[in-house]
Amino acid sequence: MKPIQVGLLGIGTVGSGTFNVLKRNQEEITRRAGRGIEITMVADLDVARAKAVVGEGVQVVNDAAAVIANPDIDIIIELIGGYGIAKKLVLDAIAAGKHVVTANKALLAVHGTEIFAAASAKGVVVAFEAAVAGGIPIIKALREGLTANRIQWLAGIINGTTNFILSEMRDKGLDFDVVLKEAQRLGYAEADPTFDIEGVDAAHKVTLMSAIAYGIPVQFDKAYVEGITKLGAADIKYAEQLGYRIKLLGITKRTAKGIELRVHPSLVPAKRLIANVEGAMNAVVVNGDAVGTTLYYGKGAGSEPTASAVIADLVDITRLHTADPQHRVPHLAFQPSAISNEVVLPMSEVVTSYYLRLRVADEAGVLAQVTGILAGAGISIDAVLQREADEVGGEGSTQTDLIILTHDTREGTMNDAMAQMQALPTVLAPITRIRKEELA
Amino acid sequence: MKPIQVGLLGIGTVGSGTFNVLKRNQEEITRRAGRGIEITMVADLDVARAKAVVGEGVQVVNDAAAVIANPDIDIIIELIGGYGIAKKLVLDAIAAGKHVVTANKALLAVHGTEIFAAASAKGVVVAFEAAVAGGIPIIKALREGLTANRIQWLAGIINGTTNFILSEMRDKGLDFDVVLKEAQRLGYAEADPTFDIEGVDAAHKVTLMSAIAYGIPVQFDKAYVEGITKLGAADIKYAEQLGYRIKLLGITKRTAKGIELRVHPSLVPAKRLIANVEGAMNAVVVNGDAVGTTLYYGKGAGSEPTASAVIADLVDITRLHTADPQHRVPHLAFQPSAISNEVVLPMSEVVTSYYLRLRVADEAGVLAQVTGILAGAGISIDAVLQREADEVGGEGSTQTDLIILTHDTREGTMNDAMAQMQALPTVLAPITRIRKEELA
Repeated sequence: MKPIQVGLLGIGTVGSGTFNVLKRNQEEITRRAGRGIEITMVADLDVARAKAVVGEGVQVVNDAAAVIANPDIDIIIELIGGYGIAKKLVLDAIAAGKHVVTANKALLAVHGTEIFAAASAKGVVVAFEAAVAGGIPIIKALREGLTANRIQWLAGIINGTTNFILSEMRDKGLDFDVVLKEAQRLGYAEADPTFDIEGVDAAHKVTLMSAIAYGIPVQFDKAYVEGITKLGAADIKYAEQLGYRIKLLGITKRTAKGIELRVHPSLVPAKRLIANVEGAMNAVVVNGDAVGTTLYYGKGAGSEPTASAVIADLVDITRLHTADPQHRVPHLAFQPSAISNEVVLPMSEVVTSYYLRLRVADEAGVLAQVTGILAGAGISIDAVLQREADEVGGEGSTQTDLIILTHDTREGTMNDAMAQMQALPTVLAPITRIRKEELA
Repeated sequence: MKPIQVGLLGIGTVGSGTFNVLKRNQEEITRRAGRGIEITMVADLDVARAKAVVGEGVQVVNDAAAVIANPDIDIIIELIGGYGIAKKLVLDAIAAGKHVVTANKALLAVHGTEIFAAASAKGVVVAFEAAVAGGIPIIKALREGLTANRIQWLAGIINGTTNFILSEMRDKGLDFDVVLKEAQRLGYAEADPTFDIEGVDAAHKVTLMSAIAYGIPVQFDKAYVEGITKLGAADIKYAEQLGYRIKLLGITKRTAKGIELRVHPSLVPAKRLIANVEGAMNAVVVNGDAVGTTLYYGKGAGSEPTASAVIADLVDITRLHTADPQHRVPHLAFQPSAISNEVVLPMSEVVTSYYLRLRVADEAGVLAQVTGILAGAGISIDAVLQREADEVGGEGSTQTDLIILTHDTREGTMNDAMAQMQALPTVLAPITRIRKEELA
């Protein structure tokens, strides 16, 4: 059978990896797919660079529309990224009856509903294994591997940049700013690292996983997003003393009231496997009612790991290319007609436990004031760590860190209690609040 | 659309779990599959027990042939186990044009070639996610998630009983026999634990993974199998001091000379995630040339975790039931026409590194004799740990443990060197040899 022809839009890091792996493992991939898969046309603004990657025999253009218009091409890989031109090109490819493979989590997390509807109407697939956790086949695990389960919750380290930074902060006892500069120097963080360090990239990814876990529309605008920029070396150290690690987690849970969808730094018990995922690695923990807790670990970014996911999607599409669309796995794991409108909860309705660090005056009665406020709010305390006082002011005036771990509490209740504690004259600095997840 | 009808052969632990999960999550599973899935007929020798599980409305018989003969049933779940009657029933179901879902690793590892050929000829699927690592979707990850890759190696903790025993031995410093009894009392080990503790069960599972990783026939008879019965608490303690844990691993590697396929206790660096998989949990590490190292973790046995895998296969088959067989994923990941005859190496040709423990007389020159033999065989030493001598004999005669870690060596070379060392008069007991894997 003639190889299936693929058009590639954007041949940067992941695009080059995809081209190279597809070529290097051509024989093995064909033995699996039952048919050759070839990138025969590439669009990139930098035609010279693209030609240097693909060599002779592959048509290179600077106009993506020309690739989409090529009637010999059945599948388009979109690796341009972002919400702008990429959206138009994906919709144009669908309109032209092409299947689409994309790593573009931002696009799908924000415009997924429109894009998947267009694809379903046209009878084509938009595949996105590469959009979440790089080479880890987590989309497949969720959409196909765990179909027996009512998924209860999932939590993932799904941004390598922030996990690298947190690992370095812990290893070396350094503060965020110092490690960020080092990460930028080493290429683990971009020149503008905002999307990573503010949690936006992780939120895009957990939004996609939430949709396929629960059969709800992608709803990035409902996600709570908090990054790691305010974390200090002290919090990492105190967490360690209490038996926890701090990780930036993308979390989505099903509760009786609705679905939680959130990204923020979290204390995780040090003995959990996911707490021991270091450096730029990714891992996702999924809990289903039948299977219990499962974990998926691997490289979450990079040229060939991401290419591995892109090509897995190409093989799946090659297999089902000529099949009736009803034989395919639905975009969001559940049939389009069975997508639910279960509500995504506002952050104030989320229930979790907390780590609080208060910088307090070292005076009699401070602990009683603070714990009195928590008791008044009905928040129960799991553990307290009071440090020996530091000499800071003159005249023997001293300060200390008071660390409190709470049991499960509604976030809105915690917000109110924090406002009261913050108003105490003995609380000398903004309270640090980090959420805590047991992930059992 | 009418629900797809499933017949269940054998309703023990996993069968009950499958029935219950399918019923409990009926709505969610239908939303995914696009069609209901119902177990409508059950065969079990204990009809009364079976009726107690399934209640009214499901036909229960004591004759599996009656289920296979039922023309309304499209899929047969085989949960009888073993090579005997299960083989006949699976082949009969295939002959009757039914798809088969099975958790029977023993059957497939030994008779897989015959069974898959029969299924392909008849145009039906034999699905076996539940045969390896319980609820972890590792078969799907290997067959579909990592299709881009040339798999280099994989290694798994794929027998919960032995991992539970090894965890307990380490935690409590106890010897194998003591912990086995405890495991039997707790239900983690069977009354006749031979298949588990001798590594046979793990060998069945790694044989299946080897076939789908490399596109070779299932060849259980070529697997090297060594269990954990000879491990002592001392080796676990020494390994710990050297920075390693001991795990029973199923390993398959691709080398220039051929494929390694083996089960044996292995030292693994304590910092690897898989070294920290404790109790009855399972985990598989897979290394592909594009994706790098990935890991999959979860419950490897039990009623509902295994049911999760059985039902995932039911959903896959329900989706592709009426599709042309060419649209389906091939049984062994590679197209039947593309299965390779790459050789599986005999154990003497395997290359790995080693932990050796020698019980030696505490005399001058012993270390020189031992290291001289290794040097003569071209085996280079990575680390040596010599214990302080124990007083054991009378008259001041003392013995000690000498522990040696080697670099990579051909097993045949190591066998020869071990025979020479064993012949030394200063070597007082059989040498303990445990293989060591870096799994990087």
